[in-house]
Amino acid sequence: MKKTIITNGTFITLNEVQPIVRGCMVWEDNQITYIGEHAPLPLEQYDEHINGKHKLFMPGLVNTHGHAAMSLLRGYGDDLALQVWLQEKMWPIEGKFTAHDVRVGTELSILEMIKGGTTAVVDMYDHMNEVALAVEQSGMRGVLTRGAIGLCPPDVQDAKLAEAVQFAKDWHNKAGGRITTLMSPHAPYTCPPDFIERFVQAAHDLQLPMHTHMSETAREVQENFEQYGSRPVAHLEKLGMFTRPTLVAHAVHLTDEEIQILKKYDVRVSHNPGSNLKLASGVARVPELLKEGIKVSLGTDGPASNNNLDMFEEMRLAALIHKGVTGDPVAVPAEAALRMGTLEGAQSIWLEQVGALQPGMKADFIALDIDQPHFFPKTNYISHVVYSASAKDVTDVWVEGKQIVKNSECLTLDEEKVLYEAQRCFERLTGQ
Amino acid sequence: MKKTIITNGTFITLNEVQPIVRGCMVWEDNQITYIGEHAPLPLEQYDEHINGKHKLFMPGLVNTHGHAAMSLLRGYGDDLALQVWLQEKMWPIEGKFTAHDVRVGTELSILEMIKGGTTAVVDMYDHMNEVALAVEQSGMRGVLTRGAIGLCPPDVQDAKLAEAVQFAKDWHNKAGGRITTLMSPHAPYTCPPDFIERFVQAAHDLQLPMHTHMSETAREVQENFEQYGSRPVAHLEKLGMFTRPTLVAHAVHLTDEEIQILKKYDVRVSHNPGSNLKLASGVARVPELLKEGIKVSLGTDGPASNNNLDMFEEMRLAALIHKGVTGDPVAVPAEAALRMGTLEGAQSIWLEQVGALQPGMKADFIALDIDQPHFFPKTNYISHVVYSASAKDVTDVWVEGKQIVKNSECLTLDEEKVLYEAQRCFERLTGQ
Repeated sequence: MKKTIITNGTFITLNEVQPIVRGCMVWEDNQITYIGEHAPLPLEQYDEHINGKHKLFMPGLVNTHGHAAMSLLRGYGDDLALQVWLQEKMWPIEGKFTAHDVRVGTELSILEMIKGGTTAVVDMYDHMNEVALAVEQSGMRGVLTRGAIGLCPPDVQDAKLAEAVQFAKDWHNKAGGRITTLMSPHAPYTCPPDFIERFVQAAHDLQLPMHTHMSETAREVQENFEQYGSRPVAHLEKLGMFTRPTLVAHAVHLTDEEIQILKKYDVRVSHNPGSNLKLASGVARVPELLKEGIKVSLGTDGPASNNNLDMFEEMRLAALIHKGVTGDPVAVPAEAALRMGTLEGAQSIWLEQVGALQPGMKADFIALDIDQPHFFPKTNYISHVVYSASAKDVTDVWVEGKQIVKNSECLTLDEEKVLYEAQRCFERLTGQ
Repeated sequence: MKKTIITNGTFITLNEVQPIVRGCMVWEDNQITYIGEHAPLPLEQYDEHINGKHKLFMPGLVNTHGHAAMSLLRGYGDDLALQVWLQEKMWPIEGKFTAHDVRVGTELSILEMIKGGTTAVVDMYDHMNEVALAVEQSGMRGVLTRGAIGLCPPDVQDAKLAEAVQFAKDWHNKAGGRITTLMSPHAPYTCPPDFIERFVQAAHDLQLPMHTHMSETAREVQENFEQYGSRPVAHLEKLGMFTRPTLVAHAVHLTDEEIQILKKYDVRVSHNPGSNLKLASGVARVPELLKEGIKVSLGTDGPASNNNLDMFEEMRLAALIHKGVTGDPVAVPAEAALRMGTLEGAQSIWLEQVGALQPGMKADFIALDIDQPHFFPKTNYISHVVYSASAKDVTDVWVEGKQIVKNSECLTLDEEKVLYEAQRCFERLTGQ
């Protein structure tokens, strides 16, 4: 069992009793065993000793909603409304994506994510085997799911469901436990009710949680009402989705009553502020969700609607926009945004041992270079992380105790090759 | 006359006829003389030849509102309302600021700004001599002004006005033309009407433009109405301010009528999205201002209310929040945000030869490392700069043709010394 110690570090723990620790952290294999002021053993008794001076350590960031492979379409179609963007720009090209494209696009996103401090990601896409292989190779943690659009003939629906089930079985608790799976009908507006019900049944059979897009735009909510006589929350409740543990992405347009339904079923919300702003979908009612004790986490959404995967930016947006829009300067304090991006993120996706630096938790954590102007003076590090930091301040990343980024270089993927191939895929797909 | 050429570069020009140029740029001394596909002369005829491969070049960013020295209070008092934050946290400590503190705080901010690609800044503060000396040493461009709060006895008012006038005279067109000056009563809510009128008169005497905070919060607008019978725009109009060229910061709370008054006098607006969100001041009506042809630029405001000085982030916020809040996905397109952060920024502060890469313009420009995942695929660079880039992608910075940042190292200020002293100042000021 390999035993590693960091000394001279500053740690943001996400432990409410002692949010900042100056001193040492020890992990053995994949688990944190100590955090505190003094080294528990003489330094020579550790297999590895890291001097943490000039570094700030914190839990890895958790991105609870995305479509990594869409990085191939970054910058291809900006400043458009969601439906136009999807139907005229994204879907026609995505329809041409091969398994290879998905692999390359996912690797491109994973590179950006892990170098930027994201250690766990929820990914919903197609060709999920490739996504799982990329996550496995990268060393990061993935909660993966084949997102199925059900607007297709019955035989295609059957094939998609079967594929989603097979993928969920094949990869749940794989890659040394780093990969888990979910069941995901894409959205109420892209899936007929009976298709959603079949996913719910499959999730029951497999004992897996569910994930879907919900109430992202006002138009979609309105159309749901016109088509089914209820808004999306009641609609999904009726279809039994919330009888499974569920994570919904976006949830921008909610009534008070809908918030109560989400609360009743402990439905978790992935708040995607960057994407919701960029696609003009609106601003989610996050302060109200937090007030009701609903678990709110943060997602980047796909890199074509953001257009980066910097989770520090999502924390910052979550902390900023709700203040500006509600007029309440404490609407989402820095600490709440940090929790959404780390501990609450992990809990939202059923990773109970991730998101905080304390004994018993998995050693998923990152280091930031804090000897830079925007981290001075050294006052409130939680404020600095939320209001000043960016992905590029991250220098080192560990997942399950293993280092996957060192001095800003990725140790698990070949960056030069991925960049080269991503460009080739894009040019082929768009006929350039 | 030193003649330098960049070859193999990709240039965002801010020239509408040819927004992207792939090839070469030449500058002689402080002025761009050529931009185009091919080198005009054999390479050996240049004094310096830079290979621009893997780099994206663009005009330096222009930050049109800030209080650089407030970096000493970064993270000291977050998540508070503007008035509480000012009166209980900022002003008591700022009252203790010595000339040395202002020098160090300003240098800390300048380091962050220039390393992050900002080449010109408007700064309004006290001890402005120190600010000017820091700007002079740094090699950046500064539009500087002694901001005066007039809630004080007549003799103190007199002294402040005299100081503002003296500073404006001493430093206008100094540092080889890199420093110009403005006249700034702090805000209508902090300056009695006659004090503002005296500043207007001084600005006429000196033939200088004016700068002030205006309509940042709803409360301030309401109080202006109660105290003077008019909202801030009509109030300032009545006091004659707009008879001078004027830049107002914030302008969050405007009526249609007020927008027409600003348009009539060609008043320029410094939009500070990060600060306005963080202090819960609201969201300015930027799409309407742009529609009326009013010059809108971007400012970070002070680093204690932001809390960073990353102008890429301000461009991104400007592009994102107005979409999300208005529901219009083209409210502020990427290109408009880029213009606000560069060319329109420069024009807003009367720097007519700054903000675009074309012959005749000053050689104020920056280079970004674009061989990184978040810049792939290489599609739309304007989109990438606005939606994906951050300050830390900047590697090199030139102002007036002189390089001041090289390979992410500042060539003009001693970073280690500034960080050390900033920490010492903070600890002394807060008694830690």
